[in-house]
Amino acid sequence: MTAQPTACVIVIGNEILSGRIKDQNLPYLAKALSAIGVPVRAAHVIPDIEAEIVATVNAARARYTYVFTTGGIGPTHDDITAASIAAAFGVPMGRHPGAERILEAYYGETLNSARLRMADLPTGADLILNPVSAAPGFRLENVHVMAGVPRIMQAMFDGIAHTLSGGPPVLSRAVTAAAREGDIAEALTAIQAAHPGVDIGSYPFGLGESIGTCIVGRSTDRADLDAAMDKVAAMFRNLGHAPSDTDPMAGMQE
Amino acid sequence: MTAQPTACVIVIGNEILSGRIKDQNLPYLAKALSAIGVPVRAAHVIPDIEAEIVATVNAARARYTYVFTTGGIGPTHDDITAASIAAAFGVPMGRHPGAERILEAYYGETLNSARLRMADLPTGADLILNPVSAAPGFRLENVHVMAGVPRIMQAMFDGIAHTLSGGPPVLSRAVTAAAREGDIAEALTAIQAAHPGVDIGSYPFGLGESIGTCIVGRSTDRADLDAAMDKVAAMFRNLGHAPSDTDPMAGMQE
Repeated sequence: MTAQPTACVIVIGNEILSGRIKDQNLPYLAKALSAIGVPVRAAHVIPDIEAEIVATVNAARARYTYVFTTGGIGPTHDDITAASIAAAFGVPMGRHPGAERILEAYYGETLNSARLRMADLPTGADLILNPVSAAPGFRLENVHVMAGVPRIMQAMFDGIAHTLSGGPPVLSRAVTAAAREGDIAEALTAIQAAHPGVDIGSYPFGLGESIGTCIVGRSTDRADLDAAMDKVAAMFRNLGHAPSDTDPMAGMQE
Repeated sequence: MTAQPTACVIVIGNEILSGRIKDQNLPYLAKALSAIGVPVRAAHVIPDIEAEIVATVNAARARYTYVFTTGGIGPTHDDITAASIAAAFGVPMGRHPGAERILEAYYGETLNSARLRMADLPTGADLILNPVSAAPGFRLENVHVMAGVPRIMQAMFDGIAHTLSGGPPVLSRAVTAAAREGDIAEALTAIQAAHPGVDIGSYPFGLGESIGTCIVGRSTDRADLDAAMDKVAAMFRNLGHAPSDTDPMAGMQE
């Protein structure tokens, strides 16, 4: 059995740290990477400051199988991700001929020096194509540098997903009932102890009359996952609560 | 002039890294902390693993004025934040009498050992009250440990905000126009260079016919901010685009 590949997401952008914009890239990448067997083990939101980008990227690329950054690859002064990645790898920046051709074809007569700057990439970078608005992202070793605008980032990722070597997909199964967390904690601890290969999370929801708890199991082993979650369903029944296989919070924001 | 206080947000929770739930706590804290002059300089999303929590919290509490964690303080086996904070500070866990009284009053006859575990806190912790569902958070030195459920986290934070020593509030002003980023990049660079005390971000939006760019300035100096953003408005007018003071993306998710 080979080790499960891992991923780290680095969201680069002052607008996320100021609360102006809610990041949507981590949720997308987390789901998409889990599905292909590359679970996200950590995510960092950092400002548009070169030293921060260099330190965060270098720590992450040494520790995780894959690193994905979002944000900071446009034509304006605050787009410093490409130069920061070059600094992290200790390689010079240079005009990428393929990126230049893409920008020439897309912008035509409106191609100016600011836009051409988007073809200045770390030496040795491979392009990540942008089917939405042309200006490409790039990959250097295990670091994938993508746009911050979610629909562009998603299109970029969907184009490179096939190049990633995933482990077995991380499967998940939810069991929900109108029980309170504190009433199931002891039984749930025993189920977790009996299934160390299943990561069991307990998530309370609601208040007052509509309270309940959603138990989510995650594992790469379908049989082990089902055995554990069948026990969770039985635990709920023993306490007089009919379990359901739905996850009332999936995709929700609280 | 004293240095601006800073904050770091640490979101603890496998459910965020799996993409099952979209974090809402960073956006809330980022806005609320900026408003009281404590800008968030970094955020980390980490799994429910003690070694990860210890390393992340210890690095953050040494570097930032304030640290805020969310998640992992409930009654179930996967709630390991309190014990991990104790390990980070090298202090023992112990039953907190005040927390115990709160839980006794709230749960009455349904108080069991799993729920009582929520009164086991790092020695020396001060309580952060939970007006929603009783079980408290806590503060140890500059680290504030709060619930993961957004409405509980928000109520906890609102109760402690007055205890934080903020610098001048970070003011922001947006100027938006139907111009493309690449056409304003050069002029915008000059404005940023003339106003180093204003953090100017450029955010494109839309595609096709509804394209535009929102320029956001952020500063603690109102006069400097207004001078810089007036120049941005003039820049748009010079290019034939009527500027507006709205931020079409504020609070949006893309």
